Amino acid sequence: MKEIIVQKYGGSSVGDIEKIKNVARRVIETKNKGFDVIVTVSAMGDTTDELIEKALMISQNPSSREMDMLLSTGEQVSVALLAMAIQSMGHDVVSLTGAQCGIITDSKHKKARINNIDTKRLQKELSEGRIIIVAGFQGINENQDITTLGRGGSDTTAVAIAAALGAAKCEIYTDVEGVYTADPRKVPSARLMKRISYDEMLELAELGAGVLHPRSVELARKFNVPLVVRSSFADSEGTEIVNMDQIERVAVRGISLDDDIAKVSVLEVPDRPGIAFKLFSMLSLNNINVDMIIQNVNRLSVNDISFTIKKDDMADFLKISETIKETIGAEKVTYDDSVAKLSIVGAGLAGSTEVMSKFFEALYELGINIQMISTSSIKISCIIDRDNAEKGMAKLHEKFQLG
Amino acid sequence: MKEIIVQKYGGSSVGDIEKIKNVARRVIETKNKGFDVIVTVSAMGDTTDELIEKALMISQNPSSREMDMLLSTGEQVSVALLAMAIQSMGHDVVSLTGAQCGIITDSKHKKARINNIDTKRLQKELSEGRIIIVAGFQGINENQDITTLGRGGSDTTAVAIAAALGAAKCEIYTDVEGVYTADPRKVPSARLMKRISYDEMLELAELGAGVLHPRSVELARKFNVPLVVRSSFADSEGTEIVNMDQIERVAVRGISLDDDIAKVSVLEVPDRPGIAFKLFSMLSLNNINVDMIIQNVNRLSVNDISFTIKKDDMADFLKISETIKETIGAEKVTYDDSVAKLSIVGAGLAGSTEVMSKFFEALYELGINIQMISTSSIKISCIIDRDNAEKGMAKLHEKFQLG
Repeated sequence: MKEIIVQKYGGSSVGDIEKIKNVARRVIETKNKGFDVIVTVSAMGDTTDELIEKALMISQNPSSREMDMLLSTGEQVSVALLAMAIQSMGHDVVSLTGAQCGIITDSKHKKARINNIDTKRLQKELSEGRIIIVAGFQGINENQDITTLGRGGSDTTAVAIAAALGAAKCEIYTDVEGVYTADPRKVPSARLMKRISYDEMLELAELGAGVLHPRSVELARKFNVPLVVRSSFADSEGTEIVNMDQIERVAVRGISLDDDIAKVSVLEVPDRPGIAFKLFSMLSLNNINVDMIIQNVNRLSVNDISFTIKKDDMADFLKISETIKETIGAEKVTYDDSVAKLSIVGAGLAGSTEVMSKFFEALYELGINIQMISTSSIKISCIIDRDNAEKGMAKLHEKFQLG
Repeated sequence: MKEIIVQKYGGSSVGDIEKIKNVARRVIETKNKGFDVIVTVSAMGDTTDELIEKALMISQNPSSREMDMLLSTGEQVSVALLAMAIQSMGHDVVSLTGAQCGIITDSKHKKARINNIDTKRLQKELSEGRIIIVAGFQGINENQDITTLGRGGSDTTAVAIAAALGAAKCEIYTDVEGVYTADPRKVPSARLMKRISYDEMLELAELGAGVLHPRSVELARKFNVPLVVRSSFADSEGTEIVNMDQIERVAVRGISLDDDIAKVSVLEVPDRPGIAFKLFSMLSLNNINVDMIIQNVNRLSVNDISFTIKKDDMADFLKISETIKETIGAEKVTYDDSVAKLSIVGAGLAGSTEVMSKFFEALYELGINIQMISTSSIKISCIIDRDNAEKGMAKLHEKFQLG
């Protein structure tokens, strides 16, 4: 049996007819090297945004199920067109929707998780020598309803298929050359990494480095799928994402900045057992993910709890904010969406007080106030004012000599 | 159990956001009258044409399977948006693709036929009180591949669902007020019919009257589905399509003109048994439908065979034209796409030499040459030069006093 390569092309890689033909040539090149090839694609260019706009013209609050019904068409158009391009170049190919590909998810519309991939159809098409084009970002739940996987969902589709079929490699094609030590649009001296570990990549992705979605990295790590991020326009090698033991351990691998967050503060909460449980279970029930949390005791028996959420979840949060206030007896709930999260990531960072003090020194030198701090064995993150975020990132990049 | 009404809205009825909201209001009105409502919709406005254009920019000859994959997205967008509009007006609703609706077809992509509708999902949603919006024009074959039903496919979807659920009525909403005695854009004196029989409607539809697709009329007749054609913009009653015995029999009910055809002549074919069989089985194998056929014996042992096909099928025909010529030993194959088919339809027409002679008289008075003739118990059709077609239609309309 041939080795399988799974490739994923993002929306900008299939943005117009010429780009689709370009992708077709890349796919055929890989096939001609002797591999079985499965390709997942996103919706063309701005298609998804245009569909969302149409939906909002009809309803300010469309149901998630119908949004998934609507948005999943974007990828379906891409796969059909890419399949036609490959056919016109003389190769046998078949396009599949998420449902046809056997991608079974849970029922959390707009951010579903893949439960299982029934690979029967994939294996049948491969055994008949076909290239397979799979609609990224989508699946089907047990009720046969179409679901979408949320942001970065096409990456997840690619990795999940690679894992399910034991693919030799999963290549993520995008409009950048790979993973950089910091966002090169904001830090001109940023350097392309040749290799990074799953764990570091996961932290960077979680922290807002947009190249890969954290869920796809997590999945790749779990199933040990060799992952490569490359440009679909250039011929460079890109960045390999590998196991920690295949890579030299450095203190700081990269820096990330996430300005897609908002800070919520629940003020003057009675200091009783169960308050945090009540608060965060209400958020969880409403599918709102919480990232950093701090709790301050101000006065005897009154607490302030602050946490960060995705900006996307802000509208959902506002709907339940009043209920939360009443349920836990808080005095006030405040929001601040002018914050950003700045982080350094490195597998060799664990417990290094030297790294930590350098980090705080850099921000101190710029007079940046730190609002929240969170650390793990391979990262240090802090919430700061958004206006200071870019200069903070540049300073850290310089301080840790990443350029 | 409530009575079920199935409504179908064409592409122009859902052409923009405002029109979609208008359809939503109509649907809710029907629901509020106490019916269970199932709605099928076509793709918005020119969506299908735009998708076809994209496909042709990629490949001059895209595979039918991938075309179906591509085109079916148009209806999926419509159903999601209509469902959102109905939701925003406070009603419980669910949209379904052809596959989710259980519409199982054969595998003739681009012109599939419905084999069966598995009504489980429809019945479940109705029992939960929901309005159901079904993507018209599409289904799924046994291999789980998406199929489309060809032109007028959304009408067929509506009638098939009405038949499967024993609906009280199937209403086809369109941009005209109903069925006219002739195309009112071409014959200003044309009159809206209150009622017409299935058989007459079927002939009119077959003959090119664009309001309803023949397959949907045939299906309605077979399962005795009460059918109504109405405008989605006005409040008029439209045209009811009923059983022959519920309607007064007239000699001529209406006139139709089909200029979407081409005439093919296969010249100087040896006069041997099996020639016609070979010719038409090759056409059938290539899914090319033949309408009228004539065969002339010119000289001893040499025949000319002429027939008409849909213009859409011309490209497919040209691909096999040379093979046909060689297989049956013809001297030459010629094409003429400047023809049109002009027909009169009426259940009381059968064997009436008076009607027939009036028909030929009208064309004779205009000096129009008749190239082919075909008759049935309820219609007379002839192939004439396209340039003469409209004045011929006007003349017949006047002659049979249909205005």
